[in-house]
Amino acid sequence: MPKEKGKGMTRENDPLQHSFSKNTSMMGLINELWYLKRDIVSDDFDRALYRLAEEVPMTIHEYASGETCWTWRVPEKWTCQEATLETLDGHRLVDAADHPLHVVSYSLPFEGVVSRTELLAHLHVHSKRPEAIPFVFKYYDRNWGLCATQAVRDALTEESYRVVIRTSFEPGTLKVGEVVIPGQSDECFVLVAHLCHPAMVNDDLTGVVVGIDVARELLALSQSQGQTYYTYRLLILPETIGSVAYLSHNEELIPGMSGGLFLEMVGNDSPHALQGSFEPNSQADRCLNSVLKSLDPQGYLGEYRTVINNDERQFNAPGVRVPMLSLSRVEPPGSPTRPYPEYHSSDDNPGIVTSERLEATKQVVLGMLRAWENNQYVVNQFKGEVFCSGYGIWIDYRVNPEGHRLLFRIMEHCDGEHTVADIASILQTSFQSVWEVVALLQSKDLVWFSRTPHPTRPRKRQAGL
Amino acid sequence: MPKEKGKGMTRENDPLQHSFSKNTSMMGLINELWYLKRDIVSDDFDRALYRLAEEVPMTIHEYASGETCWTWRVPEKWTCQEATLETLDGHRLVDAADHPLHVVSYSLPFEGVVSRTELLAHLHVHSKRPEAIPFVFKYYDRNWGLCATQAVRDALTEESYRVVIRTSFEPGTLKVGEVVIPGQSDECFVLVAHLCHPAMVNDDLTGVVVGIDVARELLALSQSQGQTYYTYRLLILPETIGSVAYLSHNEELIPGMSGGLFLEMVGNDSPHALQGSFEPNSQADRCLNSVLKSLDPQGYLGEYRTVINNDERQFNAPGVRVPMLSLSRVEPPGSPTRPYPEYHSSDDNPGIVTSERLEATKQVVLGMLRAWENNQYVVNQFKGEVFCSGYGIWIDYRVNPEGHRLLFRIMEHCDGEHTVADIASILQTSFQSVWEVVALLQSKDLVWFSRTPHPTRPRKRQAGL
Amino acid sequence: MPKEKGKGMTRENDPLQHSFSKNTSMMGLINELWYLKRDIVSDDFDRALYRLAEEVPMTIHEYASGETCWTWRVPEKWTCQEATLETLDGHRLVDAADHPLHVVSYSLPFEGVVSRTELLAHLHVHSKRPEAIPFVFKYYDRNWGLCATQAVRDALTEESYRVVIRTSFEPGTLKVGEVVIPGQSDECFVLVAHLCHPAMVNDDLTGVVVGIDVARELLALSQSQGQTYYTYRLLILPETIGSVAYLSHNEELIPGMSGGLFLEMVGNDSPHALQGSFEPNSQADRCLNSVLKSLDPQGYLGEYRTVINNDERQFNAPGVRVPMLSLSRVEPPGSPTRPYPEYHSSDDNPGIVTSERLEATKQVVLGMLRAWENNQYVVNQFKGEVFCSGYGIWIDYRVNPEGHRLLFRIMEHCDGEHTVADIASILQTSFQSVWEVVALLQSKDLVWFSRTPHPTRPRKRQAGL
Repeated sequence: MPKEKGKGMTRENDPLQHSFSKNTSMMGLINELWYLKRDIVSDDFDRALYRLAEEVPMTIHEYASGETCWTWRVPEKWTCQEATLETLDGHRLVDAADHPLHVVSYSLPFEGVVSRTELLAHLHVHSKRPEAIPFVFKYYDRNWGLCATQAVRDALTEESYRVVIRTSFEPGTLKVGEVVIPGQSDECFVLVAHLCHPAMVNDDLTGVVVGIDVARELLALSQSQGQTYYTYRLLILPETIGSVAYLSHNEELIPGMSGGLFLEMVGNDSPHALQGSFEPNSQADRCLNSVLKSLDPQGYLGEYRTVINNDERQFNAPGVRVPMLSLSRVEPPGSPTRPYPEYHSSDDNPGIVTSERLEATKQVVLGMLRAWENNQYVVNQFKGEVFCSGYGIWIDYRVNPEGHRLLFRIMEHCDGEHTVADIASILQTSFQSVWEVVALLQSKDLVWFSRTPHPTRPRKRQAGL
Repeated sequence: MPKEKGKGMTRENDPLQHSFSKNTSMMGLINELWYLKRDIVSDDFDRALYRLAEEVPMTIHEYASGETCWTWRVPEKWTCQEATLETLDGHRLVDAADHPLHVVSYSLPFEGVVSRTELLAHLHVHSKRPEAIPFVFKYYDRNWGLCATQAVRDALTEESYRVVIRTSFEPGTLKVGEVVIPGQSDECFVLVAHLCHPAMVNDDLTGVVVGIDVARELLALSQSQGQTYYTYRLLILPETIGSVAYLSHNEELIPGMSGGLFLEMVGNDSPHALQGSFEPNSQADRCLNSVLKSLDPQGYLGEYRTVINNDERQFNAPGVRVPMLSLSRVEPPGSPTRPYPEYHSSDDNPGIVTSERLEATKQVVLGMLRAWENNQYVVNQFKGEVFCSGYGIWIDYRVNPEGHRLLFRIMEHCDGEHTVADIASILQTSFQSVWEVVALLQSKDLVWFSRTPHPTRPRKRQAGL
Repeated sequence: MPKEKGKGMTRENDPLQHSFSKNTSMMGLINELWYLKRDIVSDDFDRALYRLAEEVPMTIHEYASGETCWTWRVPEKWTCQEATLETLDGHRLVDAADHPLHVVSYSLPFEGVVSRTELLAHLHVHSKRPEAIPFVFKYYDRNWGLCATQAVRDALTEESYRVVIRTSFEPGTLKVGEVVIPGQSDECFVLVAHLCHPAMVNDDLTGVVVGIDVARELLALSQSQGQTYYTYRLLILPETIGSVAYLSHNEELIPGMSGGLFLEMVGNDSPHALQGSFEPNSQADRCLNSVLKSLDPQGYLGEYRTVINNDERQFNAPGVRVPMLSLSRVEPPGSPTRPYPEYHSSDDNPGIVTSERLEATKQVVLGMLRAWENNQYVVNQFKGEVFCSGYGIWIDYRVNPEGHRLLFRIMEHCDGEHTVADIASILQTSFQSVWEVVALLQSKDLVWFSRTPHPTRPRKRQAGL
């Protein structure tokens, strides 16, 4: 039974309540769903989303075509019945029945004989990967179009060709799947992945299935160990317009979103790249940045907008300003095949991802969320330096000078003014190495953790420059 | 009819009201006024100022000799009737009748026969330009003195010479000309130029005539297009003491002065140098800095006190702290003839300036003031990213990646916390490129402009380091 | 008569009141006290402290063994009656009667025949200085132990040896000597030196005697010229536990401690090293840093925890946060014999220190305290630039361009928002060169000094980035 929410419609997946205990593996979900024509508003998108809702308790929000979402408008549902290119004597050169990418997503319908020149203006190839079919979309700036390999295009020597593109634009609903893992606090961390890239895998299905598996783990943890502090929200949506639709209908949630992470391209063979948010000094940035290297020693950091652009842009944007980072596996800056060789092509298929890499990324995400949960202000119960020998935590500087120095530098920042991530950031060390020390101190009642600053300095801070 | 203002006297130029519609060209004014002996308090200074008052509606403030202005005191009016150097047998070697610079400005009177040695201690030459007569002044640390070329000095082989310097020091009034272009707000931008360098042109008459022409343009604009937002004040005065006299008698205006620009040396053949104020992060600094390159691609920036020192020092000083920049044409740092070869010499004559360069500088100043008027906080009406295709402002990243990136980086800073100049400064781009985008956004009702910050972020800013 | 203070006991040195007018030289005190076995709680420590109390009016605080001080506990009094190593046939190889360092400080008692292997685990040598006896201490992580030269150790070829260590642990009191020079204000600057290194000189007795001599000078100055502004406190104590004991019993004093300096290793032949506090922008840091070079042109700066670790750690620690710097003579970073060759060895004897160097360090400390007294906010009485010629303080830029520039750059920061140290820090010049200018300005009534900020800018500060 759909219920009204703002102008959008929200349907909780009651009919699926019985079945969400399914526990399909990430690769299993990929194999089932990857070849669907998951265009942004489409029947296959819905099919994929409903299938995912069998895996986790999911609320599905619906936003009708034509509905205004902030400055945007929800597009029509698009369906392609047929898309072919033939010689005038009936030899079929291109057929969307062979591969969904042969037609431009949201192509206008078109039927007729066109000159070779006109055809070339509508026949797209992949600039870096001639043997593959490119992924081309024209959601708003519409036209008709087909996609093919370079070889097909190069072989076009006749004067005219016949094109048949039968597509329909009809009212539908854009759908956003939301999985909520309630925490003790309404303050919320948001995971986002998009599902709208038809017949491709690394971009974008890998982010979705990792998100689903992370949600399953959080739910299990919540049941076994009690609620987390933060509420977690996983959103599965069509890129950009999905985020805008959701956010514009849930504005009251925005002030409570203190951090987020976008997930995509996490099955291919590259190290993890963590892209910072618009606010590089946010706790989300400091925390996730300081934990990356321990979770993937090959992992690297990039500033906002320098790795890959996705939904995190809507969350970081003016009037929203949720510090959302982005995690993906992307070749290092300067690589000619960045983000990865098969990007936006028909070669982005299950063959380029492995379950090991998906699992590794899942562990990276879980490690980041563990740090996020633990990232509190460290408030000293002690004054002066701690009597380390007395508490059995002394590190002899003659034996381990680096360890000794780090222990003392961490302790000296436990002053109620710095979070674990702040300390890691100042000392340019890992979240974990700080956490190990402060957790030990806490176990000895030497510090306690606070979600808000709790300064303990007796003297007022002197004015600096 | 003079009216009392503080301790100073202010005379509005009523007798000249009829004639200020004169529209003499900048070079015309230079040719008329340059050779006058415009010492800081002198009849020729007054002549020049009254002549300028025929060009624009000007108020002339008078401050009597001996009057205290903050820590300063207004000097006497100084007149030189005669200044000569002769051999004992009557051969005249130096005569101020030949060129006003032959006598030190504010030289004490002296008459007598002096030994060659004593004469040399009083006969000044130009250290870098031996063939010219130097400009030397002794306004406060007084002595008698003559100036000559190196050749004249080198030819002094006799034992004694006769010196006649007939100068008088008498009560007078220091005069400051003020042109006000009233704006909608009392908040004010100040243009300053000094007029007190006798028989020279680039330093300082060029700054004065550009200031006059800018004022004429602002008055015309005001009449044709309505009042500007800011009030503009052009001050024409003797260097240093003129600024101190004016400011100390108009203290109530100081809090409203939010920016300023000093003008000088703008006719010679060098690129524009823009010297920052004492407060490099002021809106005045950010705005003028970010607009310079578009107005003069050869233009360059310099920090406070590193290009050339003038009246901007009084405005930037403690107890005043108006962020006043300085615009001049000065050879680049490291040049041996910096600021320019003819500086403070008799070679600084109309031959080294051109009307084209004066006009170009005028356009630079007007461009800066245009930016200053436009420099407001940009407040987003939108939330999330703007639906660019929907508003017809999409830049395709496949066609123009730099343009695409800049568009989005500008939009993402439109958050009510940044002015146009702030955004240009952060993105290290020009004021104009930011302005073009935000003006477009405004025309689509996507942003509005505010003179004060108007933050739109829903979440409270997290504590940084 | 001891009086109760918190849980600790405080005894003012009444019986010594008559004699504190003794005026023994620094080297005299060293010669008298250096060879005492000044272990942290010991009879010889007390002897040394009582002897020092004859030189200055001192309050002696006592904290009983076992007493809790924040996270610490005061150790027992330790005494070594005998400590020897012999061959089984009675040939004595090591004897603490020969040198106090032959036994580990706070060694457990032990008596018996041990195998060569076991002996080696308890016989310490100096890793960098084989011919000397090392200083080894086991205050909390206890064991029995002896110390010897490398040659003695290398000659141990027999299978077994006889060890006799007769030490006792009994209740005693840890003692802290406090010399107070009262100022007009309760705000306080703290000097600290430790006294607990047995039979050594540079580390730590030199810091103690310089502290005593500085205190004598301050007392004399106070009598001859009136009270200083700040109250000064010299603390002489056993390292670490002494600071913790004092601070934990005097918490009410902490908010008033606005700066401090730890003193140690100041007699050897190295330039002065000034180690910053945990808060590098504190007034204490800025002030002392900016004055060092004028006092010792070879002196150099180091960040917190990068030169040498001592009691300043307790003062800078969480819950205390007094910005305490540290002054010592230490070889430059990278030197293999850092801090100095004889460090923590029996070679640290009176032969490596000179009275000239002690006197020089005393002058450095006094120079720093003079600057600290003078370090106030400089508030302009003037507005605009000062009429320098009128006040006779003009520096001609043609004669002394650097001096001219510095004069004006200093004056322009006299705005009630910057202290003398702030100005020196911004201009990267010495405290003295700023002080000379502002003292001159004050003598002309152009500025006054304020202990708190007193901004004079008419315009409100514009929002920066």
